[in-house]
Amino acid sequence: MSAARPQHAPLNQFPVQDDALLIGGIPLPRLAQRVGQTPFFAYDRAAMTQRVAELRKHLPPSVHLHYAMKANPMPAVVQHMATLVDGLDVASAGELKTALDTTMPPSRISFAGPGKRDAELSVAIAAGIVLNLESEGEMERAAVIGRQLGIQPQVAVRVNPDFELKSSGMKMGGGPKQFGVDAERVPAMLRRIAALELDFHGFHIFSGSQNLKAAAIQEAHDKTFALAARLAQDAPRALRLLNIGGGFGIPYFPGEERLDLQAVGSHLHEVLAQYMPQMPAAQVVIELGRYLVGEAGVYVTRIIDRKESRGQVYLVTDGGLHHQLAASGNFGQVIRKNYPVVIGNRVKGGERETVSVVGPLCTPLDLLADQMELARAQPGDLVAVLQSGAYGRSASPSAFLSHPDAVEVLI
Amino acid sequence: MSAARPQHAPLNQFPVQDDALLIGGIPLPRLAQRVGQTPFFAYDRAAMTQRVAELRKHLPPSVHLHYAMKANPMPAVVQHMATLVDGLDVASAGELKTALDTTMPPSRISFAGPGKRDAELSVAIAAGIVLNLESEGEMERAAVIGRQLGIQPQVAVRVNPDFELKSSGMKMGGGPKQFGVDAERVPAMLRRIAALELDFHGFHIFSGSQNLKAAAIQEAHDKTFALAARLAQDAPRALRLLNIGGGFGIPYFPGEERLDLQAVGSHLHEVLAQYMPQMPAAQVVIELGRYLVGEAGVYVTRIIDRKESRGQVYLVTDGGLHHQLAASGNFGQVIRKNYPVVIGNRVKGGERETVSVVGPLCTPLDLLADQMELARAQPGDLVAVLQSGAYGRSASPSAFLSHPDAVEVLI
Repeated sequence: MSAARPQHAPLNQFPVQDDALLIGGIPLPRLAQRVGQTPFFAYDRAAMTQRVAELRKHLPPSVHLHYAMKANPMPAVVQHMATLVDGLDVASAGELKTALDTTMPPSRISFAGPGKRDAELSVAIAAGIVLNLESEGEMERAAVIGRQLGIQPQVAVRVNPDFELKSSGMKMGGGPKQFGVDAERVPAMLRRIAALELDFHGFHIFSGSQNLKAAAIQEAHDKTFALAARLAQDAPRALRLLNIGGGFGIPYFPGEERLDLQAVGSHLHEVLAQYMPQMPAAQVVIELGRYLVGEAGVYVTRIIDRKESRGQVYLVTDGGLHHQLAASGNFGQVIRKNYPVVIGNRVKGGERETVSVVGPLCTPLDLLADQMELARAQPGDLVAVLQSGAYGRSASPSAFLSHPDAVEVLI
Repeated sequence: MSAARPQHAPLNQFPVQDDALLIGGIPLPRLAQRVGQTPFFAYDRAAMTQRVAELRKHLPPSVHLHYAMKANPMPAVVQHMATLVDGLDVASAGELKTALDTTMPPSRISFAGPGKRDAELSVAIAAGIVLNLESEGEMERAAVIGRQLGIQPQVAVRVNPDFELKSSGMKMGGGPKQFGVDAERVPAMLRRIAALELDFHGFHIFSGSQNLKAAAIQEAHDKTFALAARLAQDAPRALRLLNIGGGFGIPYFPGEERLDLQAVGSHLHEVLAQYMPQMPAAQVVIELGRYLVGEAGVYVTRIIDRKESRGQVYLVTDGGLHHQLAASGNFGQVIRKNYPVVIGNRVKGGERETVSVVGPLCTPLDLLADQMELARAQPGDLVAVLQSGAYGRSASPSAFLSHPDAVEVLI
């Protein structure tokens, strides 16, 4: 039966020893004891390091790699990532605070987000980071605040491109959008930036996220560089920064295949060779969040009850959608599919069976695995949801039904 | 154009004065000043009081009304509701703590939820509240813990009925489910409850939620009482409690019409007349969350930016899906529809226009109103999302992108 069904892509980031997952080299049952509670998120430091190294191997050496903190803002994770990457991208004043607590120089920190409040602009300008301006209105406010502070704002323009990233989990460019400034309005904005004496760095052109198709990313890279080269002609000074976004996806669901990084990287070499002579001073930046940390994390819950109802087995755990909303299928998904899930202390197991894994909440939405084949498990066993390093705890309604929060550990 | 489109049901819970919403009698701009920040949730005490009074008018006087705290666990709201209703239902030890801080007697507090941990069972048994047992395994654990504590557990059996509530937003009964014990297994469980010397109160039969069709609720009431009467024959003692759940919906989306409470109430009179002679000692309980508080609340955000992109207007606010996930369409909805939204300080306005209201997050999911007709608004104006009194702040990923939390006030 399962031979015909789409399967999850092979995941090898965590070895298995004595049939238990090893996270950061620690068998999962031992790790649960060390954490002292379930549920928890565990993030593997070495898996992040390895992922960055793999990217460096394929990407042109001149390209900078930034970490988009929104994927996982745990301070320890950000501290670790700051030692690996060339810059950080923040999406709020809260994230900025965490970023400034690292050793990353402010000039390598950028701030994007469509609704920056005056108080956020003020701290960002005072910190000397690069503001990705999302609208003409934000530009004007930044200029006023800069004058009030007596500090010249460092700015880039976030461009809403006139194309979109095809086959994307999230389209963030093309057509009308709340993000950035329509490409066709950018030349006028650049003249105003010069008049306002803002320190112009360059462009942020981000067309989508969670993409697994190398061809789509290659095409977006072509169009992004062409657009940047065109817009650069109207810039008040030579481009120093070109943030081409990210969009690299990771496989979550059955049938999804891993992004061909080699293909993306080799194409980027060609694109750079073609366009960089026109923008020789521009630092090209790829900004990734999920791709750097998503596969390095696991969400671990303990089975509280094993029950049967009309022929189906339910494993009821102490964790659920209040910590891992996306795995329940309730965050941006149209059709619910299963994340990769294993019994973490009994990965292969003896007997196997088809079960549903549910959480403790009084809602049928609280579903971590729907009719999935797992090792036969009992109360006390640990359910591990893989691919949980990004958009997990911080993107989930932790206060829902007033259950305890999930602990996060970096190993 | 809009004449042909489905409209939101008329909402009159908040009067309008000088074109501003009045919440608890306070004009919204003044309220925002009093709160001292946006975004915030404001809940209107009088609207809750009035809703309970309306229910009492239609429901048979012998029926008890319980408040399901999961809809809105703000302690001040729970304190107020405790003065209005006959009991509270909790879904976790966290909610239980808030419930026990009211004057509600423990015997009027019940605890449902499929994954109760031992520590939760222990505090519940010690508190003397009624445990709605969700499985045979939970029954056995409760018995062990009761013996350890030297306290007889007060229990009811949550039944997974052999029918479902038709046309429900959430089906929670019928077929295989993680909730409760299949009706056909209840007789054996009742014998075991007697053997374990648990203090048996009755049944909790809950078939669905957020239902706007009186006929569907009437049918569920028929079947619920028939099932309870049948199961009561195997009970170790006369039924003292019959919690028939709730399921009463409120209108959120265009085209939805208000539940006909009169029809539900008058049918319930008939059902009671038919079945109560068989269960004369049973206290019938209707447990409602959303229906009691959902319409009494509003989520208020301030416009930070007004921008245009390729012919569309975006109002970018300081609040969004991190506080009001359901309004963004990302919580249990298949097709995104707009909640009722108004410019709270300019309800009718002069000029009107079609706009999208988005939040500050770097994701296209952060959408509070999609192409909706509103009064023409500017930065500084207040966007009010109505029907936000239930499953708002506590059901949203407040840590997402590390923006400030929303304040809650009860007026």
